[in-house]
Amino acid sequence: MTRMDGFRERVGGFAFGGDYNPEQWDPAVWREDVRLMREAGVNAVSLGVFAWASLEPEPGTYEFGWLDEIMDLLHDNGVSVNLATPTAAPPVWLTHLHPEVFPIRDDGQPFGFGNRLHYDPSSPIYREYAANITTKLAERYSFHPALAMWHISNEYGPTSYGEAASINFRSWLRRKYGTLDRLNEAWTTRFWGQLYTDWDQVDVPHIPRNWMNPTRRLDFKRFTSDALLECYLAERDIVRSFRDDIPVMTNFMRFFRHADYWKWAPEEDAAALDIYPNPADPDSHVSAAFNYDLFRSLKGGQPWMLMEQSSSAVSQWQLNIVKEPGRMRLGSLQAVSRAADSVMFFQWRASRGGQERFHSAMLPHSGPDSRTFREITDLGREMKLLAPVAGTTSRSEIAIVFDWDGWWGLEEVFGLPRSDFSYTETVMRHYTPLWERHHAVDVVSHASSLDGYKVLVVPNAYLIDDEGAARIIEFARNGGTVIMSFFSGVVDGDNRVRPDGYPGAFRELIGAKIDEYWPARPHEEFGVEFADGRRTTSTWWRDDLHLESGTALATYADGLLAGRAAVVENRFGAGRVVYFATLLEQSAFDAVVADVVAEAGVRSRFDGVPAHVECTVRGDASNEYVFLLNHSADQSTSVTVGAEGTDLLTGSPVTGEVTLAPLGAAVVRITHP
Amino acid sequence: MTRMDGFRERVGGFAFGGDYNPEQWDPAVWREDVRLMREAGVNAVSLGVFAWASLEPEPGTYEFGWLDEIMDLLHDNGVSVNLATPTAAPPVWLTHLHPEVFPIRDDGQPFGFGNRLHYDPSSPIYREYAANITTKLAERYSFHPALAMWHISNEYGPTSYGEAASINFRSWLRRKYGTLDRLNEAWTTRFWGQLYTDWDQVDVPHIPRNWMNPTRRLDFKRFTSDALLECYLAERDIVRSFRDDIPVMTNFMRFFRHADYWKWAPEEDAAALDIYPNPADPDSHVSAAFNYDLFRSLKGGQPWMLMEQSSSAVSQWQLNIVKEPGRMRLGSLQAVSRAADSVMFFQWRASRGGQERFHSAMLPHSGPDSRTFREITDLGREMKLLAPVAGTTSRSEIAIVFDWDGWWGLEEVFGLPRSDFSYTETVMRHYTPLWERHHAVDVVSHASSLDGYKVLVVPNAYLIDDEGAARIIEFARNGGTVIMSFFSGVVDGDNRVRPDGYPGAFRELIGAKIDEYWPARPHEEFGVEFADGRRTTSTWWRDDLHLESGTALATYADGLLAGRAAVVENRFGAGRVVYFATLLEQSAFDAVVADVVAEAGVRSRFDGVPAHVECTVRGDASNEYVFLLNHSADQSTSVTVGAEGTDLLTGSPVTGEVTLAPLGAAVVRITHP
Amino acid sequence: MTRMDGFRERVGGFAFGGDYNPEQWDPAVWREDVRLMREAGVNAVSLGVFAWASLEPEPGTYEFGWLDEIMDLLHDNGVSVNLATPTAAPPVWLTHLHPEVFPIRDDGQPFGFGNRLHYDPSSPIYREYAANITTKLAERYSFHPALAMWHISNEYGPTSYGEAASINFRSWLRRKYGTLDRLNEAWTTRFWGQLYTDWDQVDVPHIPRNWMNPTRRLDFKRFTSDALLECYLAERDIVRSFRDDIPVMTNFMRFFRHADYWKWAPEEDAAALDIYPNPADPDSHVSAAFNYDLFRSLKGGQPWMLMEQSSSAVSQWQLNIVKEPGRMRLGSLQAVSRAADSVMFFQWRASRGGQERFHSAMLPHSGPDSRTFREITDLGREMKLLAPVAGTTSRSEIAIVFDWDGWWGLEEVFGLPRSDFSYTETVMRHYTPLWERHHAVDVVSHASSLDGYKVLVVPNAYLIDDEGAARIIEFARNGGTVIMSFFSGVVDGDNRVRPDGYPGAFRELIGAKIDEYWPARPHEEFGVEFADGRRTTSTWWRDDLHLESGTALATYADGLLAGRAAVVENRFGAGRVVYFATLLEQSAFDAVVADVVAEAGVRSRFDGVPAHVECTVRGDASNEYVFLLNHSADQSTSVTVGAEGTDLLTGSPVTGEVTLAPLGAAVVRITHP
Repeated sequence: MTRMDGFRERVGGFAFGGDYNPEQWDPAVWREDVRLMREAGVNAVSLGVFAWASLEPEPGTYEFGWLDEIMDLLHDNGVSVNLATPTAAPPVWLTHLHPEVFPIRDDGQPFGFGNRLHYDPSSPIYREYAANITTKLAERYSFHPALAMWHISNEYGPTSYGEAASINFRSWLRRKYGTLDRLNEAWTTRFWGQLYTDWDQVDVPHIPRNWMNPTRRLDFKRFTSDALLECYLAERDIVRSFRDDIPVMTNFMRFFRHADYWKWAPEEDAAALDIYPNPADPDSHVSAAFNYDLFRSLKGGQPWMLMEQSSSAVSQWQLNIVKEPGRMRLGSLQAVSRAADSVMFFQWRASRGGQERFHSAMLPHSGPDSRTFREITDLGREMKLLAPVAGTTSRSEIAIVFDWDGWWGLEEVFGLPRSDFSYTETVMRHYTPLWERHHAVDVVSHASSLDGYKVLVVPNAYLIDDEGAARIIEFARNGGTVIMSFFSGVVDGDNRVRPDGYPGAFRELIGAKIDEYWPARPHEEFGVEFADGRRTTSTWWRDDLHLESGTALATYADGLLAGRAAVVENRFGAGRVVYFATLLEQSAFDAVVADVVAEAGVRSRFDGVPAHVECTVRGDASNEYVFLLNHSADQSTSVTVGAEGTDLLTGSPVTGEVTLAPLGAAVVRITHP
Repeated sequence: MTRMDGFRERVGGFAFGGDYNPEQWDPAVWREDVRLMREAGVNAVSLGVFAWASLEPEPGTYEFGWLDEIMDLLHDNGVSVNLATPTAAPPVWLTHLHPEVFPIRDDGQPFGFGNRLHYDPSSPIYREYAANITTKLAERYSFHPALAMWHISNEYGPTSYGEAASINFRSWLRRKYGTLDRLNEAWTTRFWGQLYTDWDQVDVPHIPRNWMNPTRRLDFKRFTSDALLECYLAERDIVRSFRDDIPVMTNFMRFFRHADYWKWAPEEDAAALDIYPNPADPDSHVSAAFNYDLFRSLKGGQPWMLMEQSSSAVSQWQLNIVKEPGRMRLGSLQAVSRAADSVMFFQWRASRGGQERFHSAMLPHSGPDSRTFREITDLGREMKLLAPVAGTTSRSEIAIVFDWDGWWGLEEVFGLPRSDFSYTETVMRHYTPLWERHHAVDVVSHASSLDGYKVLVVPNAYLIDDEGAARIIEFARNGGTVIMSFFSGVVDGDNRVRPDGYPGAFRELIGAKIDEYWPARPHEEFGVEFADGRRTTSTWWRDDLHLESGTALATYADGLLAGRAAVVENRFGAGRVVYFATLLEQSAFDAVVADVVAEAGVRSRFDGVPAHVECTVRGDASNEYVFLLNHSADQSTSVTVGAEGTDLLTGSPVTGEVTLAPLGAAVVRITHP
Repeated sequence: MTRMDGFRERVGGFAFGGDYNPEQWDPAVWREDVRLMREAGVNAVSLGVFAWASLEPEPGTYEFGWLDEIMDLLHDNGVSVNLATPTAAPPVWLTHLHPEVFPIRDDGQPFGFGNRLHYDPSSPIYREYAANITTKLAERYSFHPALAMWHISNEYGPTSYGEAASINFRSWLRRKYGTLDRLNEAWTTRFWGQLYTDWDQVDVPHIPRNWMNPTRRLDFKRFTSDALLECYLAERDIVRSFRDDIPVMTNFMRFFRHADYWKWAPEEDAAALDIYPNPADPDSHVSAAFNYDLFRSLKGGQPWMLMEQSSSAVSQWQLNIVKEPGRMRLGSLQAVSRAADSVMFFQWRASRGGQERFHSAMLPHSGPDSRTFREITDLGREMKLLAPVAGTTSRSEIAIVFDWDGWWGLEEVFGLPRSDFSYTETVMRHYTPLWERHHAVDVVSHASSLDGYKVLVVPNAYLIDDEGAARIIEFARNGGTVIMSFFSGVVDGDNRVRPDGYPGAFRELIGAKIDEYWPARPHEEFGVEFADGRRTTSTWWRDDLHLESGTALATYADGLLAGRAAVVENRFGAGRVVYFATLLEQSAFDAVVADVVAEAGVRSRFDGVPAHVECTVRGDASNEYVFLLNHSADQSTSVTVGAEGTDLLTGSPVTGEVTLAPLGAAVVRITHP
């Protein structure tokens, strides 16, 4: 039994609850809290996330009494605790005593006090104090009956350009490169005369007079992610040293560029996600779906934790739209449908003051007699009905690449043919046609195994190391289908252009050589014609591409590249590669992707269901659970489920067709024969 | 006789003149200046505003000779002096000797030399040197026959985030809160673990890693306003200690967010305003009118001083449009019509160099043979004709709230449901329908007495303390009519959300509970239907509101809130409240406001006059003066004055109707029977 | 024989090549490089531009071996070397040892390492180390047979606001003004009380609380240009001291605001230009033409060096469009047509890493089998055919003013009537109608001699000193035609408004007095009517102008200035002045300019040729070379050449008409009879 199995057993299926910050409230409020938690079906809370100053109000002086009382009170009311190390919020006494703990901005100035995450992850003082409070907490609560999980710190994220960071960056580089010669080679420091001749000269990349060396920037991103990871590991190891059977995690964020979660996830018992899909964005549920698939994939298909979401509006944006009635429930079920084993919120009770006063909560400012609390209570009841689903997962024949190195290469560095690459938009552009057609999709990194997949989607793999490139080539050679888009394979793991012409790593794979990259002018549009005569357009980019073994699936119909290939097909080994050399109009792109996936023998069992009904499956050896989620607020829609089963939400039998009201949902259990 | 009565007597009615900076010119020019001042009717100048370095070129070395000569020369030519303490412009020797005098930016960096207002108001060194030069000036000139008024410093404004500010902020907070516990409570420091455990930890709010604690920010705004006020009071007390019968003031600015003028005005003999309505803005005369009403109200209806305006273009904007012929005169009369007792300009003679070379002056670069100087001379003649008006004031039955705490709450703090609140735009939106209908309006703060008003307009009173809220409630209970708009009563004086649901302080007053605030998406528009069937639209915001004692004046015609109240009416005590839960289309909003005002029994005597003719009345026990100002540059317009009188500008009798040429004006004296 | 004659003789006509950075590559690559250089016709390279760290890896430790080998290798392969002092790229050991070498930003923070040009030009330490490495290079290579030219540093540009800059700025000001009184007068420091009483108080203009004293800013720009020039001169004098017959230059940049090239050019043997016309801008070849004319004019008509351009796309912009086929050749010929004696590129071989990996090169990432390398090789062959053209130049009867002081006055200072003046756009607006009509144009500064010109174009000469103004006035008085546009003559060389009204220096010249400047509102448009009844419009600006001796060529047809002059003509002495008081619609403006030029007796021999075919002439005593360049990518066009000759590119005889293919070119040699 894994640690997470134990956790699921303890909460009886899904964890349902949120961040709980009792230190903001009088004890009288605590009693009301637990009463309302019971009413809402809450069975787990994250506790103490920002409580360092409340637990250790002065260096070495501890106040655990209130926490003891809360732990007991929660336990008495059947609420399990995901206990946080409070190290995301260093107390003011720490920065006042040691201002060098503050993170330093890239212009060399420190940030001031008055927020959380105001620490330099490389600071030895910060690490020492963080270890201390972690030890104290572990000593005291490791065997408290309420303890169900450790929540290490919170949303690891700060970057610092201070002296401590320089020292650690230097060490990190020494470990990586061994010699300065190798660093100079990797960073191409002979360009513009940036040659290092002594390790002491190497420092963090403060704002230079012009733009930054791309490899130095890339390594600094890698280093910062690793520095944060070291902070996590130190605290994890402390709590583990007291007790080994409690799961440990930290909460990650949606599309967060500053930590390479592929390197972090193996160190956690569960991948945990904080996500705030923006209700102002009509497609936010699609990018949410991608993130859910990513989080399931981070630990190889294991269920993950939805650790924070909002009941309605947040307060961190310029414009904070509410979640309209039904959307919070639908979004929660969506996470569950893609293998979340918890539905948690920030936070239980809305704060009266502080920065996030207007961030919605399970218990909002308007109190229990409110739309939000009613919806929370309804959802709490449904989570219990869904208990059998917990612990199950899903499978896929399609994988899509999402890789932090690749992201950094495109977005952290200036000096590319164009500077408006958005890696996440590009990935979503490739993911969307699969989502709309109800394909199950796994997410992989450049380092992931590709075994078992039929189709691999490679969106804009600009920066990829030799091993990563070889893995993709091998996949195709062995019979896989690769869908790849332009500006891939260009630079190696050191962010250096691969020699011998574009597309570097993938010339043989795509069966073409690219002479030059031709970004398009604003508003420039190109005619594109498919072999069968269909016409479409493209924008934004063209490869000046010369076919070798490849053939043209589509060619330009006009312009200087008229007649040249816009989409390339290449039979490669036992496999097939389809390469997009331009940014096809989205529906044309979607159609090609759909065809290629079908030709690879991958079929969705929900083929033909309209895109607004999201269809997914979780399952285990005994059962499968079909989730049908109607994202339309206007239309009822009927969906045929190809087997008899039971809708867990209603308890009704399902024989064939399920009709979903607007924003409606069904979770059909189908028992394997 | 008040000090200001003495001043009026001395200048023989209105003060007319401007800032005079003779230190920029040769003595030969001084002779020409006074000759042209006489020609232009100038009877008062502000002198020495930036002359510190000229008066004290080295620490402790004084050069008063030139000032003696100028004072005498002005006096000999019948020009009274508003003598400035020059402390807005610390000499370079002071910042060179004591760089800690420089204000510090919120990122921790000091500003450089090369401007005015480059001092930290908390700096003890600055305060010491400022007191010294003030003493020297007062010693020498308190009994000079030219002295008519003291002009303390100039446009108080700088904010500093330096060490001196931290020390004083800390003291200010200790005085306010007494204990750290109370500060921690008010600031909700348990949120995100910002708890203070020692006063030494409390400092000014430098840029944090993310956004700022809202109450800390609010208190810092209050503190900065108070720190500047302390600077003013210190200098005022010095000049008073030498002679008590000379009025003392400092010049404020239009819509200036960084000093709470309600707290300052009682410390002055007259409220004085620098205002530069932008000729590029076709509505700038309406916001000017509001500011004039505010300045009259700041000291309870007493006449105020128009201390700076421009004769034509300024130079401080990206685009500096000239005042077309006639506009300078009309704008000057507008200020007078709303109880200004002076018309003063920055500055007398246009500078050849320095930052504001292209700021227009009474005597422009093109010299006396210029449109501008001719218009100035004409105006000077008219000011003499208007002399009987000086000292009179006006009355109103309508008050509108304008409050600095409320402004700071909305605009100095991030994390609201939306971050594009503009308090001044909102206030102008409420003021405009009253202005267009020629209603006299007073301006009140949350702390003002509301006695004597029939209608109180409360635009977006988001942050209001208990006393302020009680005053509004009491006003309604006693029979007053309250017009209030959304997002009011939400947070208390500590910037904390009021418990028990929105709209906090005003649930009973408006007769409705608000479940949640629903900011609108960009371009989202809602249909709204009035009880009588009229239809309009709204945008930007909706309350998710549930009527209690209130009734719907208008409901949403579509959307998720269809049928729910968009405008609420509530009979409350002996009074009536009309509450706008959404941003109604402006003309529909105006119509509601007009109806509600009329139903409250308030009638304008200029009802029916087109909006482009501004109609106002000043008066005293013997006479009233009707100002009719035609803001149209195209149309002549006739206005019926309901009594016989004399146009002071022409000396012609008025019997019934006055016809105003485009940009024309009349000031009709009507003697009380 | 001048040094440049020697250089031309050595390279056999034109220099063709680029920056060569062998330190980035293995010696094996060097062999391939020289082989391909021979293939491409390369006869010159700029070497060692950023090689300081490679030449002096530690202070006082030198590695010249690789450079010896390269110099020999190049020489053996017939490639001449333009050897760079590497001082644009201080090694990291220098800034690590002496952080005070870093330039300081205007907010007081230093820049970090990781770029080039990261030095404070005032730093004595920088200057000392730069002199040392320059000396070492000169000692070793002055008599190397490959050496053909010295390339001092690179793209001089950095500005610093540090302590060293303050010290030098102070000395510079003392030399300029002698006494503080004169500085205070020039800077108008009595305005806002900025009076200096001790030289130690004077420092560089850090960001002030508000905006900067305009004369202080202007002097700081002049000082910074001079500080950079001192750096250049110091290195030039070192290399000269070793050998006197080698030409010395540094490479300037297109429209570079931060160095006054008129002061620099006399100190060089050839003006040298780095230029990257943006392929995304359809008019970039017109502004290129202007810059080429400027560079020819900088040294009084001598041929200049095109020192850097790109073969295709660059990487320094947000969007880097490629040069489409044929455009690189056409642009190169365009430079030659306007008296360039070299065609050089940055850089020879595309880098694999570093900031400019995606900057195109002569030898691109795709290698010799590429469009780019083929076009380079073709061009190299053509350059040889053009050899007779080298050393010749051109003549013009029209001059246009382009002046750095004037530029700084308009764009480096806030507080003008409007703040969106673009000096370069204004100049291009005046140059374009001349360019379109194939007029040869020289560029002059306010200090240039105007002898020999018939027409002088003065675009927006806002800041001009007395001598400059007198020179223009004298030119007109003696019979010249002056075309001048609004906001000219306003401030003197100290940036102070000239007394006695606008337009200051030019009231008598234009025959009109300006009462006030009236910038237009956004989108405001004015009707304008010419004397002959033609109508057009204007925008952006109007003078409120009163004619004196001048007459109206056109008047406003509407608005407050209806009937008043919009374009003024003034017969002045023996000459004529046409003054534009508003921003005429471009085609109307062009027509007036064309008429005025024609009336001045200036005629283009290519009158009637469509604008898209650029026609220019170089020549000497024996021959003239007519360049015909078709910038249209769509149309073939025939041009009549009025004499018999030979097309150097094809060797074909030309008798009368030449037909140019799209993007085609001809260079017709016509031997003087």
